[in-house]
Amino acid sequence: MDKKNIPEKIKVKRVPQRGVYDKKTIYKILDKEFLCHVAFIHNGFPVVIPTLYGRYENNLYLHGSAASRMMKSLKEGIDVSISVTRVNGLVLARSGFHHSANYESVVIFGKAIFIEDKEEKIKALKYVSDHIIPERWEEVRGPSDKELKGTMLLKILINEASAKIRTGGPKDEKDDYNLDVWAGVVPFSKEIKNPIPDELLRDGIPIPPSVEKYIKNKN
Amino acid sequence: MDKKNIPEKIKVKRVPQRGVYDKKTIYKILDKEFLCHVAFIHNGFPVVIPTLYGRYENNLYLHGSAASRMMKSLKEGIDVSISVTRVNGLVLARSGFHHSANYESVVIFGKAIFIEDKEEKIKALKYVSDHIIPERWEEVRGPSDKELKGTMLLKILINEASAKIRTGGPKDEKDDYNLDVWAGVVPFSKEIKNPIPDELLRDGIPIPPSVEKYIKNKN
Repeated sequence: MDKKNIPEKIKVKRVPQRGVYDKKTIYKILDKEFLCHVAFIHNGFPVVIPTLYGRYENNLYLHGSAASRMMKSLKEGIDVSISVTRVNGLVLARSGFHHSANYESVVIFGKAIFIEDKEEKIKALKYVSDHIIPERWEEVRGPSDKELKGTMLLKILINEASAKIRTGGPKDEKDDYNLDVWAGVVPFSKEIKNPIPDELLRDGIPIPPSVEKYIKNKN
Repeated sequence: MDKKNIPEKIKVKRVPQRGVYDKKTIYKILDKEFLCHVAFIHNGFPVVIPTLYGRYENNLYLHGSAASRMMKSLKEGIDVSISVTRVNGLVLARSGFHHSANYESVVIFGKAIFIEDKEEKIKALKYVSDHIIPERWEEVRGPSDKELKGTMLLKILINEASAKIRTGGPKDEKDDYNLDVWAGVVPFSKEIKNPIPDELLRDGIPIPPSVEKYIKNKN
């Protein structure tokens, strides 16, 4: 995409060469994570709240209690900004100034759409569940009418969105390459530890396929 | 602290028993992480941006390019909301409804204070550096006047802040304990992988103490 045509609102301003606008890259980052930070205006003040999400096609789905302040505010179709960020490592340079982090982040602007229809609500819940841990939905008891009534589902179109990515080693000042200072990257990854069965788990229930696959795929 | 006296703005509304307001707990969560999400209002729209931070005493320090849109906006003393969140595991219940995550999060409200004095600026940079990777500051070339001019430092008092914490296993509906569904927690942790030396690193420079200790302490 020609970066000249990117709308001002979503354009990456700082270090613009790190800005990425294609949907494939945006979806890829969104699919690696399940925690987002949602910003909205409440009583004139900015508020940011962490919450889980699921992506399906070009929509980001949020779920929460129907009594939640954030969900009730967002339901009204106010403007929101949502960020998803993954830090992949610390970048250690020869000067303090050039220290950085390797990361992948997405920022989305939009308005939430309230999902009222029961069937669509159940689908949206499944999208969130499948996003966080695939196949788990099929293993558990589905939602009762009472639970559905107590849960609010919202979707945000992933239309006004941009990604920002930094990879690779440090970039130092020319003269600093002569210094006796170690420079490089300290990479991170998410380690998934052994599942801890519920204390009240009935005897003879093995770790289910969803969890087995989750551990296998994410490690 | 008596939860009845918590100001409305910072009070945890959803699942209020998860709300924690003592500084010790808030600092502890802030000290485990170094990535925050900053929300502010820009041209009437909420904007959320991920950025690194450091905590020192009762202040959260943000640094960035003096040309950054976020830093320039915040410098004016507008209202901000900042969240730091750590997810420690997925909580898998017997029903979809009771699935959850174990997490620790902090939300801070306030206004940024612009740090103009050169000595205070250098101190603030050191706080951020020490927060992210202790002792690194002493190993690297310090900031030049030009670099200091290009860097903006802001601090936010950690006064209007609350934490929210969930730990432990799933809480299911009474009848669901009879189901043949596996339930429990899938815990996460951050794994720090082997440092990758810069391709241009001079021969004979070993991994420095800051990195050695970082790997040792965080694993």
